[in-house]
Amino acid sequence: MSRIAALAEIVKKNDADAMLLTGEVNLIYALETTALEGQCLILADGTAILITDGRYTETAEAKLLPRGFRVLTRSNASGMYEYLQSVLDAYQVQKLLYEDDVLTVDRFAAMREKLPCSFLPIGSRILSLRARKSEEEIASIVIAQHIAEAALTRLLPELCEGMTEREAAARLNYYMAISGSEKTSFDTILLFGENTSLPHGVPGDRKLCRGDFILADFGAVYRGYHSDMTRTFAFGSATDEMRKVYDTVLRAQNAARAAACAGRLCNEMHFAAAKVIEDAGYGTYFTHALGHSVGLEIHEMPVAAPRCEEVLCDGIIMTDEPGIYIPGKFGVRIEDMLVISGDHPVTLTAFPSDFQILSGEQNG
Amino acid sequence: MSRIAALAEIVKKNDADAMLLTGEVNLIYALETTALEGQCLILADGTAILITDGRYTETAEAKLLPRGFRVLTRSNASGMYEYLQSVLDAYQVQKLLYEDDVLTVDRFAAMREKLPCSFLPIGSRILSLRARKSEEEIASIVIAQHIAEAALTRLLPELCEGMTEREAAARLNYYMAISGSEKTSFDTILLFGENTSLPHGVPGDRKLCRGDFILADFGAVYRGYHSDMTRTFAFGSATDEMRKVYDTVLRAQNAARAAACAGRLCNEMHFAAAKVIEDAGYGTYFTHALGHSVGLEIHEMPVAAPRCEEVLCDGIIMTDEPGIYIPGKFGVRIEDMLVISGDHPVTLTAFPSDFQILSGEQNG
Repeated sequence: MSRIAALAEIVKKNDADAMLLTGEVNLIYALETTALEGQCLILADGTAILITDGRYTETAEAKLLPRGFRVLTRSNASGMYEYLQSVLDAYQVQKLLYEDDVLTVDRFAAMREKLPCSFLPIGSRILSLRARKSEEEIASIVIAQHIAEAALTRLLPELCEGMTEREAAARLNYYMAISGSEKTSFDTILLFGENTSLPHGVPGDRKLCRGDFILADFGAVYRGYHSDMTRTFAFGSATDEMRKVYDTVLRAQNAARAAACAGRLCNEMHFAAAKVIEDAGYGTYFTHALGHSVGLEIHEMPVAAPRCEEVLCDGIIMTDEPGIYIPGKFGVRIEDMLVISGDHPVTLTAFPSDFQILSGEQNG
Repeated sequence: MSRIAALAEIVKKNDADAMLLTGEVNLIYALETTALEGQCLILADGTAILITDGRYTETAEAKLLPRGFRVLTRSNASGMYEYLQSVLDAYQVQKLLYEDDVLTVDRFAAMREKLPCSFLPIGSRILSLRARKSEEEIASIVIAQHIAEAALTRLLPELCEGMTEREAAARLNYYMAISGSEKTSFDTILLFGENTSLPHGVPGDRKLCRGDFILADFGAVYRGYHSDMTRTFAFGSATDEMRKVYDTVLRAQNAARAAACAGRLCNEMHFAAAKVIEDAGYGTYFTHALGHSVGLEIHEMPVAAPRCEEVLCDGIIMTDEPGIYIPGKFGVRIEDMLVISGDHPVTLTAFPSDFQILSGEQNG
């Protein structure tokens, strides 16, 4: 079933006349392209209409007309709601599904005031559609992941004593961009030494020293789909404690992967990893949830968190990213993306995760 | 008055007990730092509390405790609303101001269900505070703009026949990043030739040819504050039509600047530019609003658009970015940032905007 057909099915099942999509990500999902802005109206009979403005008309017509969409251009002179009302009138829409997880309270209030329809929330119905990735969607994420790994491979031999976190992060982003990443999946986290204990630290002026851990958490975007990976490397040398913590995180990650089976609960993955870390005596240093789904957004539902009791099913892409963070000292995180597939998830991350000491000697 | 004091004043004026900030941008505004996540509670007496999680505790305590904030860390085990309720109880908060322009309909519904408070919308009160920039905020935007201009200056001599839009955009972003830009202000628009007629086109595989226009619309971010500029250059050679269109856009931009006076309406800027373009016979090719405010977000209120009748006042930073887009042929846009200041706005953009033909000969 095409996406528009699946969305029209939601309209029908809820006895509505149409669904109005305005959120950036839902638009990409419905239009199957990242290059447009506007509002998409989907009728119960599968008619799909994009309302856009002059900035996007040329692109919209080229991309959408061949696929059966109708494209309407609103001029600057007409107000958004007036124009929308004329479209709703033309298609006799009285009962409208709206994105209650996208529209802010004030925007929805304005819409409800200006459009004489009755409104029904879409709730999590589109998110549920989006949770199970198609082969095509998985292929886009694999390409994004490939771009990210190639960039990391290119960066590693360039890392040298004295390089700042900011410079290293900028290079990584540049390598992803020239290989076709549409943007970074999120603000790249690339940290050295004691900064690695900050799970969401920001790359700054800290310079790389021998004996540091290097932590890189980053991703590429391809056709709107996000990748996400983390690797932690030692630079120059490593202490026994660094090795022990690294080994613990890696075992925790493996334990979570073993629990990533269709039919089990999302939080079982988290608990499996947490147990390994607790048993090793680092329980208080694992300070975040194990993972999250990835797709058109970097954080999607469901999540591998203590309180998420959703059932894992085939096609979900979940990150498996345990970490141990010892404040003021160092942190280790290792992250792969897993596609749930029966009892044996497919790991989308090809980059090795064994303990590695970068020599930094190619550079000096 | 400090920002927290100004926010507490809003709480007092609305007879509420506290204000709850959860939006990323409002958090940056209240905390005066970009490195944190969580919820910020501001009481009528000026007490400010950040509720965060383990990922941010270390940074939050370092940055906020010296400034008198209280920092509370919620563990993964406790639900967000349960924890929030315990905090609201501890501070006897019964009447709570909430961000109706940030919270989605479903999140607000959940909050209203779980927290036994009465709720009042903040409306545009924080946006209004944020519209008039302080000297310190303007200084951050000037630094962001400086980073952006330096990156463009470094890129221009590298542009050569055969370079793709993607490569040029990636280099520009890299140069901004290594000079301290925290991220790009928005997805950099860098287009060649006929693609320049797409006001929001995406850089792709199009290669640079002699006789092309090059359009670059981009910005840097410093301390959370965004810059925004557009320049259009000819590459190698230019036709009379290219010169005429460029000259028209530049005259339109100047006309809008002359209308950028405190006390006048925002839409007067738009109409001033539109008149110049219409008089030159290109009226149908100016397909967007003239400009928008810039600050912690790339698009802030008020805007220089036909329907915006807000009054310009000192400290507003407005973009002045007319354009002419001839589909299939080329487009020209020139954009500066203006700080409203009495009758004579201050232009924050130092980069020249006279018609320029890049030789492309340093490279070959």
